[in-house]
Amino acid sequence: MDRSKERASEGSIAPGTPGSEPTAPDSRPAAPDAEPGASGSDFLQLDVGDAPPGGLADWLTRRLREAIADGRLPVGSRLPPTRLLAGELRLSRGVVIEAYRRLTEDGHAAGRGRHGTFVVAAPAVPGAPSGRAPATARPARPARPDGLFTTPGADAFDALRSAPARIDLSPGLPDLAAFPRTAWLGAERAVLGSLTASAFGYGDPRGTPELRLALVRWLARTRGIVADPDEVIVVGGVAQAMGLVAQVLVGAGIGEVAVEDPGSLGARQHFRYWGAATPPVPVDAEGVRVDALRATGARAVLLTPAHQFPTGVVLGGSRRRALMDWVADGGLIVEDDYDAEHRYDRPPVAALRSMLSDGVCYMGSVSKLFAPALRVGWLLAPARYREALVDAKRFTDLGNAALPQLVLARLLETGEMERHLRQSRRRHRRRRDVMVEAIGARLPGAVVHGAAAGLHLTVTFDGGPDDAAVAAAALERGVKVQPLSWHSIRQRRPGLVLGYAALPASDIAEGVATVAEVIRELS
Amino acid sequence: MDRSKERASEGSIAPGTPGSEPTAPDSRPAAPDAEPGASGSDFLQLDVGDAPPGGLADWLTRRLREAIADGRLPVGSRLPPTRLLAGELRLSRGVVIEAYRRLTEDGHAAGRGRHGTFVVAAPAVPGAPSGRAPATARPARPARPDGLFTTPGADAFDALRSAPARIDLSPGLPDLAAFPRTAWLGAERAVLGSLTASAFGYGDPRGTPELRLALVRWLARTRGIVADPDEVIVVGGVAQAMGLVAQVLVGAGIGEVAVEDPGSLGARQHFRYWGAATPPVPVDAEGVRVDALRATGARAVLLTPAHQFPTGVVLGGSRRRALMDWVADGGLIVEDDYDAEHRYDRPPVAALRSMLSDGVCYMGSVSKLFAPALRVGWLLAPARYREALVDAKRFTDLGNAALPQLVLARLLETGEMERHLRQSRRRHRRRRDVMVEAIGARLPGAVVHGAAAGLHLTVTFDGGPDDAAVAAAALERGVKVQPLSWHSIRQRRPGLVLGYAALPASDIAEGVATVAEVIRELS
Repeated sequence: MDRSKERASEGSIAPGTPGSEPTAPDSRPAAPDAEPGASGSDFLQLDVGDAPPGGLADWLTRRLREAIADGRLPVGSRLPPTRLLAGELRLSRGVVIEAYRRLTEDGHAAGRGRHGTFVVAAPAVPGAPSGRAPATARPARPARPDGLFTTPGADAFDALRSAPARIDLSPGLPDLAAFPRTAWLGAERAVLGSLTASAFGYGDPRGTPELRLALVRWLARTRGIVADPDEVIVVGGVAQAMGLVAQVLVGAGIGEVAVEDPGSLGARQHFRYWGAATPPVPVDAEGVRVDALRATGARAVLLTPAHQFPTGVVLGGSRRRALMDWVADGGLIVEDDYDAEHRYDRPPVAALRSMLSDGVCYMGSVSKLFAPALRVGWLLAPARYREALVDAKRFTDLGNAALPQLVLARLLETGEMERHLRQSRRRHRRRRDVMVEAIGARLPGAVVHGAAAGLHLTVTFDGGPDDAAVAAAALERGVKVQPLSWHSIRQRRPGLVLGYAALPASDIAEGVATVAEVIRELS
Repeated sequence: MDRSKERASEGSIAPGTPGSEPTAPDSRPAAPDAEPGASGSDFLQLDVGDAPPGGLADWLTRRLREAIADGRLPVGSRLPPTRLLAGELRLSRGVVIEAYRRLTEDGHAAGRGRHGTFVVAAPAVPGAPSGRAPATARPARPARPDGLFTTPGADAFDALRSAPARIDLSPGLPDLAAFPRTAWLGAERAVLGSLTASAFGYGDPRGTPELRLALVRWLARTRGIVADPDEVIVVGGVAQAMGLVAQVLVGAGIGEVAVEDPGSLGARQHFRYWGAATPPVPVDAEGVRVDALRATGARAVLLTPAHQFPTGVVLGGSRRRALMDWVADGGLIVEDDYDAEHRYDRPPVAALRSMLSDGVCYMGSVSKLFAPALRVGWLLAPARYREALVDAKRFTDLGNAALPQLVLARLLETGEMERHLRQSRRRHRRRRDVMVEAIGARLPGAVVHGAAAGLHLTVTFDGGPDDAAVAAAALERGVKVQPLSWHSIRQRRPGLVLGYAALPASDIAEGVATVAEVIRELS
């Protein structure tokens, strides 16, 4: 909508005229014709019907004072233009001007020329609720509640994220400074320019056809997956995909989803929240141990085959074959195609979904491609679970928002995604090299794992100090890291999971130096 | 990101060089240094290591043919620029040019000048999986499955939405053609221009501080609600708010949420999906009957006080007082502040939440203010449920996407929301008048309910035909309506729920005429 047009039309707001009478005597709700009409925006829900005759300016002043005192009109808010408020309330403009003048005189409000009249102070008003400080948004949580690193709770990631730190080496973030703002805005402009009105209505809970089509093309090109757009459910990130899958599996009587050990604490928390038990299966240098998986008796397993979290192991060929047998015996793989797009020193590896369409719930997201804040991912499931998953998505949120889906579809179809990924990869690789080098220089006894791909690496220091203590001490010195113990169940080995993709080289070097210092002091 | 810069830099892509060696012998995952590096985007996951020596062009041609045949490269897709693919694969550009030439010669591909080389046909390739039609997105569901109107299932709204129709009189949509595209894009440009990189990372599951602050100011100005930003959880629309509340209440041992009768079928479906029973409470001309609510024994009730769905009744003063007593006795109100912003012929009514902060879970959304496709709403809950609700939101999707939240915060803070609402109200009122008039002219025996506010009205025709039959017959003639029976539990009265806000006057008049015709024929 054109701003200048809107401005021009503001002057022509006419007081509302009541609508046509309804057609029958018992249609009471439509009838209160005696009430004043209004075409305003319910500012303070003012109703001139409340005002005593002849005392309109008194009444309006009192109402505004009350709203200032009880916090509905906090300091800093702008009062509506006098002409507009007068029009809405069907008062003469003089009444509103007089009320604003009185508020200004007693110090509640102040005029700022053509910018309008603003609330500047909130003294208590007799008879009104006690004054409130203006509302401000506070940070999410107290930083570093006790036990954050030793016994992480449901809000562990939120607590760590909101803890203040100079350098954030948490894993899982791409180079956020490189988010393609101009390309995004350009794509959004194109989308908004061509969209039909109905696209702003409710949509298919599985997502827009445009994005589902662009995604299957993308997955075919880059992950070897051949699928139909109708198989895709667009979701709010891999976290949501896990929640939907957990709900549906538990509902289908599959109450256990085995997980990799070590493996993502966050993923485990998600499955458990939705009622699935998560028996651990050890990971070795070839990936998950399929013999141990069989021994758990679990009918489903969560895997990160492309770049195991947190070890970085790529699932080996013999393990892939063993998993195919396990699937043939009725097993279901939940494949989190984590970090697949970021690889540096090794050839690409196809998704398990490309070989095993009927035995895999496949999930991925743009969190590591563009940004986690977009909250867009995808889920491709075997046919037997699809209807239940669509129901779960529908009753979770009726489907993802449409505009960001259409923007992403455009970025995928125009090749912008590939372009962005190519550039990110070069930057990420350089930062990876800086981190590996810093670790070599500062922590000569430590072992680096999983640096051939991804956005993080894991460093272990056998015989060294407890990693939760290291993480806590590093945070005290302004460096945020995740202890490996967060992600370990039975396999315990002190270590840290360190993200490098989101930080400039100098921060990486400084962060590693601080961590090395802490480890030396605690050893 | 600047496009021209990206173009310029494409030429400089250097084949990747392997990263630094990890620091210890057992760091196997980081070590495969012998493998070719790559800084590409995993196009078809091509790995030159697979190629026989000296047969590179053969190999690449075969791989491309296979991908065309099995659907990974559907007809219409563009092949990567030769220089780019050569760079990624560390091949000479001549090899790629030769492979493209062969594909063009045998009719798989065709050059389109500077636009590049495109796949134009997908013949079967010996030994490859059989050819696939190019992927296309199909409509969501078969239109009008049997029983849609008589026994609506979980996908009833999706089925009705995707049914083809000339005129859509479904309720619940504002004037979508008026979505403020220019203002939205302008706000997004401002947001993208000022955002820090960390805003693209993971965020507070409750939503961005900016939007929560803007929302409490908006709710204070327009709904009489005084709240702190920390009390707000930004959600994916009222549908998600209902799901979160249902989960948390059921988890707290409150397994029944009473609902209004008639009342929204969709809302009932959401609560039931999440495990809450929904005993009905009759609605009369004053709103929900609190005596009947007490009689159900339910400890929670879902209400639409501002504009009851579907009757349009405003909850009366004595009922509000009776509800306050019920809350004092331990009852909890789930307030869906449905349509509160759209009123024409009556004074504004404060939200129940403004009087009863501790006994109300309050929810609203931008679906009726801007557009349902935005999937943004808010939830304010009593302190005792807040932590569980934040957990539920976290494990549902880790929080809403950040960009749309920041855009909305800006539209709220700049007054754009109020401006849009004022304009919409005038347009909606005119359309309401057209519909009321058309019903008076075409259906003289029918009764109109709830036309003083909202985006829809309800029309009843006592003694007339079954409303499901009317809705089915109207849909046959291209007019989409919802039968009142969808939303009725025990209180049965034939009727239709008709939205008017999203349609031009001529469609409204024609739609009503068709409905009237159908009713006459079925009577």
